[in-house]
Amino acid sequence: MSTTRLETFADGVFAIAATLLILNVEVPELGAHSLSHELVRLWPAYVGYAVSFVTIGIIWVNHHTVLRQLRGADRTFLFINVFFLLCIAFIPFPTRLLATYVRTDDGRSAAVAYGITLSVTAIFFYLMWRYAIGGGGRLLRADADRREVDGITRSYRPGVPMYAAATVVGIFQAEVSAALYAAIALFYVLSSSLFGRDEAVP
Amino acid sequence: MSTTRLETFADGVFAIAATLLILNVEVPELGAHSLSHELVRLWPAYVGYAVSFVTIGIIWVNHHTVLRQLRGADRTFLFINVFFLLCIAFIPFPTRLLATYVRTDDGRSAAVAYGITLSVTAIFFYLMWRYAIGGGGRLLRADADRREVDGITRSYRPGVPMYAAATVVGIFQAEVSAALYAAIALFYVLSSSLFGRDEAVP
Amino acid sequence: MSTTRLETFADGVFAIAATLLILNVEVPELGAHSLSHELVRLWPAYVGYAVSFVTIGIIWVNHHTVLRQLRGADRTFLFINVFFLLCIAFIPFPTRLLATYVRTDDGRSAAVAYGITLSVTAIFFYLMWRYAIGGGGRLLRADADRREVDGITRSYRPGVPMYAAATVVGIFQAEVSAALYAAIALFYVLSSSLFGRDEAVP
Amino acid sequence: MSTTRLETFADGVFAIAATLLILNVEVPELGAHSLSHELVRLWPAYVGYAVSFVTIGIIWVNHHTVLRQLRGADRTFLFINVFFLLCIAFIPFPTRLLATYVRTDDGRSAAVAYGITLSVTAIFFYLMWRYAIGGGGRLLRADADRREVDGITRSYRPGVPMYAAATVVGIFQAEVSAALYAAIALFYVLSSSLFGRDEAVP
Repeated sequence: MSTTRLETFADGVFAIAATLLILNVEVPELGAHSLSHELVRLWPAYVGYAVSFVTIGIIWVNHHTVLRQLRGADRTFLFINVFFLLCIAFIPFPTRLLATYVRTDDGRSAAVAYGITLSVTAIFFYLMWRYAIGGGGRLLRADADRREVDGITRSYRPGVPMYAAATVVGIFQAEVSAALYAAIALFYVLSSSLFGRDEAVP
Repeated sequence: MSTTRLETFADGVFAIAATLLILNVEVPELGAHSLSHELVRLWPAYVGYAVSFVTIGIIWVNHHTVLRQLRGADRTFLFINVFFLLCIAFIPFPTRLLATYVRTDDGRSAAVAYGITLSVTAIFFYLMWRYAIGGGGRLLRADADRREVDGITRSYRPGVPMYAAATVVGIFQAEVSAALYAAIALFYVLSSSLFGRDEAVP
Repeated sequence: MSTTRLETFADGVFAIAATLLILNVEVPELGAHSLSHELVRLWPAYVGYAVSFVTIGIIWVNHHTVLRQLRGADRTFLFINVFFLLCIAFIPFPTRLLATYVRTDDGRSAAVAYGITLSVTAIFFYLMWRYAIGGGGRLLRADADRREVDGITRSYRPGVPMYAAATVVGIFQAEVSAALYAAIALFYVLSSSLFGRDEAVP
Repeated sequence: MSTTRLETFADGVFAIAATLLILNVEVPELGAHSLSHELVRLWPAYVGYAVSFVTIGIIWVNHHTVLRQLRGADRTFLFINVFFLLCIAFIPFPTRLLATYVRTDDGRSAAVAYGITLSVTAIFFYLMWRYAIGGGGRLLRADADRREVDGITRSYRPGVPMYAAATVVGIFQAEVSAALYAAIALFYVLSSSLFGRDEAVP
């Protein structure tokens, strides 16, 4: 199977998972307070929406960076992708957990659930890449540049440890853990935009 | 990355955000009144659905007008797009707010929330275009026509001020503000259809 | 704009609207009755799901029949399509209305709402086609076959009257009207499959 | 119609149906127990999500295996696909049924509903393939390899009986039946990954 068909399916899952996040932001019912008051109180839902949306956006960008290096996909690669996309489509659930409970005593469980989801996603992403370049470059394009491939491998190495560390923090401190998830996304966007500016791809 | 992959992802978010709007129109539960009576009472939900759907449709058309001028996308451009699409996917939430509360005292908060969302969307859209044509036409196609590019820039300039003005109106008058959002969409469709009729693109 | 981009967006809306229909089929909560009993009682929801899914499938097939005849799209055509897709994405709402109320006194209002939605959809579909072939074949491909174009025009003519008639029936009889919507879909699938078998398009 | 347009629509339905599964996993409301306790209790929802997601992923892979052998699609083939996709988009409903009721007395009805859905899906999948290769290879590519086609036919034969058998088990034992649905998916992924490894398709 060519990677084109995989990209269509994967882009679909990325786009839907990101867009479904908005269902986590619910219209408040009004009691004693005004709507403006309730809308301000919803801020964890907005932050959760934004952090998860941008995180999915980052993974989408990286997924294409991987596929651009490949000449095709075999069935093992496709099924690693199915498990990887299963994790992506799961993200709206822990996002909602975290937005709902971050300011309560149960916030730590929510932060850990969020962290486990992103750590497992990062593991499958790394597996997918290792499988593609393993076996002597099993799925690599014939003209893939060895140095570029090594650079990609290096850039994906910190993903799992970073999310695992933020998850461990979540065992003790929900809000710090949540701030770390946001910081990871922000850091990635900034560094990637500053360093990657020149490479417009026709 | 070529703009093709960006278009697939963006078209997915546009299509899903627009289609999810229907979840804001809920089947009424019947009490003292008949279903036909309740269906008529739902009219703000229908109008909100239609205005937001058409607004997303307009932005979708403009997004392709932009991408047609570009030879490719760098990472900064991709991330501006991620933030822009984050705004698009957010639209169902303030749409529901406005449809629910427009006829109550809290309607002004809802109108302001709707206006802020569309204003921020317009800001990211404008940023996206400025970034693409900045730096001496950083991402423009080699054969892009300078006059056409200037025409596009001019046509996008009123977007942010118009939505900002309707937002300010919303601080005082929810229904007038809501009518302005509808009028902006209607005006755009009419003027664009009347002036753009000749340019069938093969 | 080429029709390719329109097809991506339209296919997205078709696929999402059809798939969202499943959200209308809700897991029953159990009271005095067993789950199997409740699942049988849900049959109007299944039928509504199936009829609307197939109806959207039929319109999707016809939409591509239209686009195959065109060399491109201008802005007026795009905006007619936006209004047409607005109707498609609306279908899950009256489907749920009809499945919920068909066996009650309010079923007639639900049947009329369903019929109005499909009639307006058919009107926009017809408008879209008339606009494309109007003005001396404004958007037709240079090599479009006149006889084939006339055949398409003829085949789309009965759509609006048929749905309008079933809507009028709904004013008096909800269940007969619902059966007509199902019959129209079934009739179309059968006649189209029997007559269209030969034309495999590479 | 070329199979490309069918693939776009089908990939959309596959991606949306799979991603909508997450809506079945609901954020628990907390009573006497902690969030971590409630998250552990949700395990049937996670398993249901994973099994149905992977099952849809497997069917997606097979759907492309079929389409790769075809030179085009006629209307009958398109409508068989519409009915087949109707089944795919239905899967989130019995998944939720099974996750909700598997540990109760009503679990058997849920297991049977899940099994019927997958059996009917498998029947339409098989019909789709038989129609394409019937009539002397009606829709097959001119260069389709007879041996490969026969191999595909053989590989699809066990699908319906396997799901039908697991459905029959569900009449007596919900949990065994649910385990069988998971085992079928797991078995397929493992065997397919082990045997299909070499065929990277450019």
